[in-house]
Amino acid sequence: MSRRSGVNFEAPAPRFSQRRRWASRQAISFLMQQGVENPDVVSLAAGLVDPQTLPIEATQIAIEQLLTDTKRAREALQYGTTLGAETLRRQLLNHLARLEGCQVEDLGIASGQLVLTTGSQQLLSLVGEVLMDPGDICLVAAPTYFVFLGVLEGLGARTIPVATDADGMCIDALQTQLEQLDAEGLLERVKLIYLVSYYENPSGVSLAEQRRREVVELVRRWSERNRIFVLEDAAYRELRYDGPNLPSIWSYDSGRDFVILAQTFSKSYSPGLRVGYGVLPRTLAEPICDRKGNEDFGSANLNQHLVAKVLEEGLYAGHVAKLRASYLAKRDNMLAAAEKYFHDLPGVRWVQPHGGLYVWMTLPESIDAGFDGELFRQAVKVEKMMYVPGDLCFPGPPDDRPRNHIRLSFGVEDPGGIELGMRRLANAIRAVI
Amino acid sequence: MSRRSGVNFEAPAPRFSQRRRWASRQAISFLMQQGVENPDVVSLAAGLVDPQTLPIEATQIAIEQLLTDTKRAREALQYGTTLGAETLRRQLLNHLARLEGCQVEDLGIASGQLVLTTGSQQLLSLVGEVLMDPGDICLVAAPTYFVFLGVLEGLGARTIPVATDADGMCIDALQTQLEQLDAEGLLERVKLIYLVSYYENPSGVSLAEQRRREVVELVRRWSERNRIFVLEDAAYRELRYDGPNLPSIWSYDSGRDFVILAQTFSKSYSPGLRVGYGVLPRTLAEPICDRKGNEDFGSANLNQHLVAKVLEEGLYAGHVAKLRASYLAKRDNMLAAAEKYFHDLPGVRWVQPHGGLYVWMTLPESIDAGFDGELFRQAVKVEKMMYVPGDLCFPGPPDDRPRNHIRLSFGVEDPGGIELGMRRLANAIRAVI
Repeated sequence: MSRRSGVNFEAPAPRFSQRRRWASRQAISFLMQQGVENPDVVSLAAGLVDPQTLPIEATQIAIEQLLTDTKRAREALQYGTTLGAETLRRQLLNHLARLEGCQVEDLGIASGQLVLTTGSQQLLSLVGEVLMDPGDICLVAAPTYFVFLGVLEGLGARTIPVATDADGMCIDALQTQLEQLDAEGLLERVKLIYLVSYYENPSGVSLAEQRRREVVELVRRWSERNRIFVLEDAAYRELRYDGPNLPSIWSYDSGRDFVILAQTFSKSYSPGLRVGYGVLPRTLAEPICDRKGNEDFGSANLNQHLVAKVLEEGLYAGHVAKLRASYLAKRDNMLAAAEKYFHDLPGVRWVQPHGGLYVWMTLPESIDAGFDGELFRQAVKVEKMMYVPGDLCFPGPPDDRPRNHIRLSFGVEDPGGIELGMRRLANAIRAVI
Repeated sequence: MSRRSGVNFEAPAPRFSQRRRWASRQAISFLMQQGVENPDVVSLAAGLVDPQTLPIEATQIAIEQLLTDTKRAREALQYGTTLGAETLRRQLLNHLARLEGCQVEDLGIASGQLVLTTGSQQLLSLVGEVLMDPGDICLVAAPTYFVFLGVLEGLGARTIPVATDADGMCIDALQTQLEQLDAEGLLERVKLIYLVSYYENPSGVSLAEQRRREVVELVRRWSERNRIFVLEDAAYRELRYDGPNLPSIWSYDSGRDFVILAQTFSKSYSPGLRVGYGVLPRTLAEPICDRKGNEDFGSANLNQHLVAKVLEEGLYAGHVAKLRASYLAKRDNMLAAAEKYFHDLPGVRWVQPHGGLYVWMTLPESIDAGFDGELFRQAVKVEKMMYVPGDLCFPGPPDDRPRNHIRLSFGVEDPGGIELGMRRLANAIRAVI
């Protein structure tokens, strides 16, 4: 008898999979809910892009051209392939060559090693799926991109933090970790080193050029028995405002054997299209494609054709230039506001990023900036501003994580909002210090 | 030293995950490769939709309206949420009520129980992820949708075939299977019954109305210790040409506790958009959303806003009516050609489907229609036509599967191509009989 027919029937609880039991409630959901429940807050938390610079016009032009060409319109509205539209994958070889400053022939890859995904997030997830068994190890910078920490947790993988400084992950510390794991007989469980190589979310730091070379040499050296891959997440690569134009880690992997390069059009064009891509070592192309076949047998084909058109028609470069100028100004707004409101707060310091969307701020150790701490409550409920607690970005048991960091984004708010949010944050900190 | 610098360096083989090792090379990839290598074949194999009826004009209208409304354009080009755009999920409540022939209030669900996915394929995969541990059991019709068999295999799940007839899965046989599993102490491993309820791919058969009611009663009865879900795959629901307008299995689950309903706009609008959706029992909404958060934190937002606009502007119903008329004619072409070319072939019979895209044909048992059999070679290499071998659509070890069935699609080819393909198939069968 059913509930709705009025008889008291309680269906027994489902027995979920082990994976479901590993999955944690996502912090991002909590943050979004806070946003919904507190609509008047100034959000320096959201990882969204700037709404003002979204490419409405370029998209109008590209989609109109695509849909008025009947042959291409039919291709775009039909099923595509699991790897993704060949027309975009060919364009991406050119795009990648431009970013790498080389000729397409010198990339040393075929278009079959490019896979188009639902944002680069899906690539990160797919790499985890084909490589990681429960208990397998991924080494990450501390702090790092918290959504990927959730992916690893959901796989039952073990995530080991490696010390970082202003030049990104410390290669010496990485070497020491590997030696220790080897001594413990765990080297064969090490599958992956995850590195957000440009303007890391959340720290804003980029891996220094010399370390890029070193990390490739290191995985090669430590892969004697079992290949260790580097997963290079270059999501923010094209959002460079100043500082050096760094080569990718991938560029140092001359045999294309060890580095998986994840990139996306979410930050540099539009996240609503969810077009990301991976550049894969040959040996991973088939496993990733098979797995993606089971998950969705291909991301949205229309969007891939649309991005191809945007690239083809030369609409992309101008848009990225415009974006950079806009974000550069907003970054400077945030840094100026930080200087203005925080310079006299003892023990508060922050990173000055050369690109990306985030400013990482360190508070006095006595301050707990977490969801349950006094600062978050003061910021959201009293001052009406929101940030991302930094402890989310560290792996490991909650009690072992530093809790005195926060991630601030200049992505969504306009300059006035950034200034206001920073002033409110300073007030909140003063109130709890 | 790298390969490209000329020194002979061989990176050690990666150690893949258990899941990767369970995954099989997808039959669909083999078929696509056959298509590429034999471009002059008439394909009655491809599961694509009719290119002639793809909604180019409706999409042009909807996207133009969407992008000229700056507020909505910005929403559509920005990140969405993991569950999917609220604007489409609200529209889907109306859409679902229309399909179910009831009022929105009588659906008995909130919009939070609707999740938008990358095609309905991603929903099938997500359900597998949150429910199935290795060794857990899913009962399926034999034959059934082969891509889902691959999903289950990739999870290490056990797939048990249940006998079917012209009315779909036999409920008596299902009952017997469950009794047997119970006797073996395996009842608690049974998590799922998978049913393609309308015009099943590949068999063309629909589950009879009485059996829809019975299967819901049966899972309720057998869920005493552990909830057994029905995964109702209604991908072809809106492609009805004649025959009864069947209520969904989901409609009999009055408490909305046992049936997961998977639907999609791929067949009824455009597969290039990859907009599918799931209607979830309350208890599954959070697990599915968390898992999807790890996989991609949301399918393409632009496409969801686009489909919402198509529904909102009344562009949808007319398109579906046009599609139905076109497919009805093509189904009749295929059935007429079958009658014409096969009526005198002893032991050849076929299903007359009331909807969907497929005609299932049974050949004499002496014929091996598989990839490695003589018929497939004769058809592709000599006669230049292609079909999908039916053995792919049965679970279990290849040697135990019947090999004398084939799946024919009238989706892609025009009436002339259908006629030609059927004639060539008859020739191939005559050659090997």
